[in-house]
Amino acid sequence: MGWREGAKKRAALEAVKHVREGFVVGLGSGTTVAYAIQEIGERIRREGLRVFGVPTSHQALLLAVSCGIPLTTLDEWPKLDLTIDGADQVDKGLNLIKGMGGALMREKIVASAAKQFVVVADETKLVEKLGANHPVPVEVLPFALSTVVARVEELGGKAVLREGKRKVGPVVTDNGNFILDAEFGSVDALDKLDVAVKLIPGVLETGLFVGMADVVYLGKQDGVVKLERK
Amino acid sequence: MGWREGAKKRAALEAVKHVREGFVVGLGSGTTVAYAIQEIGERIRREGLRVFGVPTSHQALLLAVSCGIPLTTLDEWPKLDLTIDGADQVDKGLNLIKGMGGALMREKIVASAAKQFVVVADETKLVEKLGANHPVPVEVLPFALSTVVARVEELGGKAVLREGKRKVGPVVTDNGNFILDAEFGSVDALDKLDVAVKLIPGVLETGLFVGMADVVYLGKQDGVVKLERK
Repeated sequence: MGWREGAKKRAALEAVKHVREGFVVGLGSGTTVAYAIQEIGERIRREGLRVFGVPTSHQALLLAVSCGIPLTTLDEWPKLDLTIDGADQVDKGLNLIKGMGGALMREKIVASAAKQFVVVADETKLVEKLGANHPVPVEVLPFALSTVVARVEELGGKAVLREGKRKVGPVVTDNGNFILDAEFGSVDALDKLDVAVKLIPGVLETGLFVGMADVVYLGKQDGVVKLERK
Repeated sequence: MGWREGAKKRAALEAVKHVREGFVVGLGSGTTVAYAIQEIGERIRREGLRVFGVPTSHQALLLAVSCGIPLTTLDEWPKLDLTIDGADQVDKGLNLIKGMGGALMREKIVASAAKQFVVVADETKLVEKLGANHPVPVEVLPFALSTVVARVEELGGKAVLREGKRKVGPVVTDNGNFILDAEFGSVDALDKLDVAVKLIPGVLETGLFVGMADVVYLGKQDGVVKLERK
């Protein structure tokens, strides 16, 4: 395990300290959150902790089941106590780009349903400005693919349909849609871009998470840095 | 056929006069557009008119096929020459509420892809203010049902899950999602409400069509009124 795996795990362990008895917890997707899901399972076994999880993807669901975390839904619990999720880029204002795992829509729903949203990542994810050398993933109705690509171009971006691996053609999300990776370069007006992209007919959600995270744990080679919303 | 059916048909016939040789035409959904789709079929038979249609629903698709209209997609034609669609409410500024047929998402995509968007309705659809005694239909990811209902309430609305007929439980759209009918009362700031609702995580599209229609034909008992965007 390279230093980054250790760093991801250290960040995840810090985040799981936020989990309290009786909590309903949103379970994000990706390799860093996987450590958090495993740790929640450990605490259930070790401490008899009683919690429920709301998974944001098939990946999180299957992992949570294998870790022995009882699951529930937003239908039963529209308000969650806590959501733990990863990020692909983080800035110092705790804004995020998410969606490289293709789960951004449910992730945003679950993050916005939580009283506290805690993000875990290794320190390589921290950037000066979101969007530099990194696309904004966008979930799109397949019907509207060509028109959304054109509208992203009108906004100054360049959208590429995400190709799948181990299947032919595009990635299909857990919701049955496509992902466009939209390169805008480094973004100054995050809020404005998020609104402009989401308002395009056929765009279902964007991977820009502006002003949503409350705490970010960044795993380093030798510890964890905590960023907190003021 | 009551006067309203005649009025709807008269409006539809006016709209189909916009269709020219070689056009690619967005085909809306609902009972009023059905007259327009039938008339396009008639013109293909009568005049040898060559056009292609892009349907916004299974209903429009099946009807277009039965009327002999060759079909295409936005993938082939991201820019349409014309879209003809109906509306549930129309104001004098040519803003619309759509979605009582549950096809609002593809309808908005196709309307926004068209160089000209022509709306057909009978005159009972014209209102002083959109939203009075009429909900705003909203397409929602089933996963997010409860959280979107709560967020609509925070915006001052009351959202009801649309129940299906001839199937148990909720209506499922052609895209596999649910429809919430969100009562806001008569709406002053249409644009703001549309943005606020679409930005809710889990909302895929709203039935508010603000500043999109170029022409509205309103069928009356004895003629057709034309409203045009200034």
